[in-house]
Amino acid sequence: MNSTPPIAGPSTRPRRVELAALRQRYETELLERVVPFWTRHSPDRENGGFWNCLDRDGSLYDRTKYGWLQGRQVWMLAKLYRTVDARAEWLDLAVSGMRFLREKALRPDGRLPFSMTADGRAIYVQRKIYSECFYVLALAETARATGEAAHAREAEEGFERVWSWAFDWTRVGRPSFPGETPKRSLAVPMILLNLIEELHDGETTRHAARIEECLHLVRLHVRPEERLVLETVGADGETLDSAEGRLLNPGHAIEAGWFLQHWAQRLGRADLSAEAVRIVRWSFERGWDAEHGGLFYFLDAAGHSPLPLEWSMKLWWPHAEALYAHLLDYSLTGDPADWEAFRRTDAWTFTHFPDREHGEWLGYLDRRGEVTHRFKGGPYKGCFHVPRALWLCWRLLQKLEASAALIDDSRT
Amino acid sequence: MNSTPPIAGPSTRPRRVELAALRQRYETELLERVVPFWTRHSPDRENGGFWNCLDRDGSLYDRTKYGWLQGRQVWMLAKLYRTVDARAEWLDLAVSGMRFLREKALRPDGRLPFSMTADGRAIYVQRKIYSECFYVLALAETARATGEAAHAREAEEGFERVWSWAFDWTRVGRPSFPGETPKRSLAVPMILLNLIEELHDGETTRHAARIEECLHLVRLHVRPEERLVLETVGADGETLDSAEGRLLNPGHAIEAGWFLQHWAQRLGRADLSAEAVRIVRWSFERGWDAEHGGLFYFLDAAGHSPLPLEWSMKLWWPHAEALYAHLLDYSLTGDPADWEAFRRTDAWTFTHFPDREHGEWLGYLDRRGEVTHRFKGGPYKGCFHVPRALWLCWRLLQKLEASAALIDDSRT
Repeated sequence: MNSTPPIAGPSTRPRRVELAALRQRYETELLERVVPFWTRHSPDRENGGFWNCLDRDGSLYDRTKYGWLQGRQVWMLAKLYRTVDARAEWLDLAVSGMRFLREKALRPDGRLPFSMTADGRAIYVQRKIYSECFYVLALAETARATGEAAHAREAEEGFERVWSWAFDWTRVGRPSFPGETPKRSLAVPMILLNLIEELHDGETTRHAARIEECLHLVRLHVRPEERLVLETVGADGETLDSAEGRLLNPGHAIEAGWFLQHWAQRLGRADLSAEAVRIVRWSFERGWDAEHGGLFYFLDAAGHSPLPLEWSMKLWWPHAEALYAHLLDYSLTGDPADWEAFRRTDAWTFTHFPDREHGEWLGYLDRRGEVTHRFKGGPYKGCFHVPRALWLCWRLLQKLEASAALIDDSRT
Repeated sequence: MNSTPPIAGPSTRPRRVELAALRQRYETELLERVVPFWTRHSPDRENGGFWNCLDRDGSLYDRTKYGWLQGRQVWMLAKLYRTVDARAEWLDLAVSGMRFLREKALRPDGRLPFSMTADGRAIYVQRKIYSECFYVLALAETARATGEAAHAREAEEGFERVWSWAFDWTRVGRPSFPGETPKRSLAVPMILLNLIEELHDGETTRHAARIEECLHLVRLHVRPEERLVLETVGADGETLDSAEGRLLNPGHAIEAGWFLQHWAQRLGRADLSAEAVRIVRWSFERGWDAEHGGLFYFLDAAGHSPLPLEWSMKLWWPHAEALYAHLLDYSLTGDPADWEAFRRTDAWTFTHFPDREHGEWLGYLDRRGEVTHRFKGGPYKGCFHVPRALWLCWRLLQKLEASAALIDDSRT
């Protein structure tokens, strides 16, 4: 359990033809079925930025815009422009979204609304830091895509602001009450790790101490003896004796796993890499529904009923995150267990989420896998998890295909 | 549609034997299966007040206490003591809960926590008024049960405070943002109507103008041409073109229906009575799941997917509210449609929610009626909707049984 997972022999590796078919499927899904849904239906030509509430066929069912999703879509389109294909359409939309956020939604105190009117007036500002995190992602990636120095500077400034808030949310207006137990959320160090990676394109020295701090904080949530990752722990990482302290969010832990794995690779740390693999495997084992397939949204570590009413639902994003996490781990370990986990996730995901008629993925299924919500975009679902996972998997499948070609060639 | 529903002839009325069996079932459920669950498992003998997070068998799975539920349980037990049976156990527990709230949980500004530690220290204070509403209910009913004049006075003071906050939640700390659409929630006038009814035991003159205002505000949510009740409308009652503006909460509207009906009866208003009947009928027609039975939690008036992830779940409380609303309407209209609605709700409810092994009801089922959460008590489920509905129905069934006895006797 504490050693690096063993490398499997070449006989268990998928052959080139299988990898080529997968690579082709991910490429088609990303470039022909998912991204076009958003470029076709989401642009708000009048105000700039993107419509978020898009029904199954792309039609608009609500004009509210959501801050997380605006920033995430800017990031995604700028990333595709810079790493896949320099299409003017992608850059123009990213720039439109960036301008909307920067000129219409950003508030004087550096806060971004969670929800806003079509022209950017705040409807609600969360007492959380996520809108601002995704704003920094958007700035950093558009800065690279456009060469705009002001955006790069503002991304760094925005990151400093987010960091100054991140460990004390009273700074973003959260009140403090005498009966509260000091606690830590997995989400905070996770998103900071992703933010630092994106801020300087994976550069490891600029925020070295902060990277170490966040890696430490993520690891406070890991319980090797129980093979699980807790969503919330006490201030010193202790287990809290409450429903909140027992809550598991397997998809979130799996996402944390690949964030950690990226840093393990960048920093060249085998121990961290092995731990990241275990985090993904444990969360997948624990989160997979043996009866109906798919990953549960929430679980309780002691088997109580989780308090969230939607705990047994199957959401698109844990499956998207698991696809990439397993594939990444397989690419590093060569272990058939990681490949099997990827194929199992891939099979369930592709038979349940993609909409063959209108493109993009449905987001919300009940425990049995039946669609409960027909929309493609809503307050928490936008142009992010699906295209990000497809893009990451596609690039990795290209590499695996290339190495398989060498191996296959050497066999003949 | 605008006339009082026709009174059905005696031939369609349920016979005395059917009413007697129902009355007996409701009595047993209330007094032998539901109330004992709470008196046995919920008392916190050390701190006073009640444990709220009770698992299926009554065992404690979290020590957090919830403000809504503390006040509601005090109200329920004091009500049972005063109207059913002067059992010392019920009064003692009500007094213990009242003392816990008044001495340990109440804050100097008159606010009550939503969640708190076992000894009453605030974990979270909502920017809403509901904890305080249920505190006033508890004060008013314990004042009547104990004759404690200080409680009666504090109930009136507490009500004045709630009223001063009710139509402007910035007074309880809710921020205001420039993009917000001024809007009205059905919940506010509804709960105020219930509060005024409970405050002086149905007396109609003390807050006459406020009763009229709340009746007017509830009616702003009713759309006769579409046969539905909107949860949220604009400041002047206009329909909002958004997911929020289209949201239906059938169980909530049904509960509003019987709150209105109580006032219609107390004020002797036939038009209001007929409107209250229609509100219940429309919400029941709209909310009933033709495929799997039971009432949906949320719907969208235009048929879009409601945004809440749990929209298709079947919760205990809409069914509890519908039982009493239909029975009350039947007792007034004599219309077989209301009786049929009561029997349909009763059949689905009693085959799905009650726990025959440990007492009380399960609270959360999926759309198909399968249990998703095994606990009996949680942050929003306590000793309230189930015993209140059983108590109200039982009393009404006693009256219906008595009149049926007269009719049946006159037939022989």
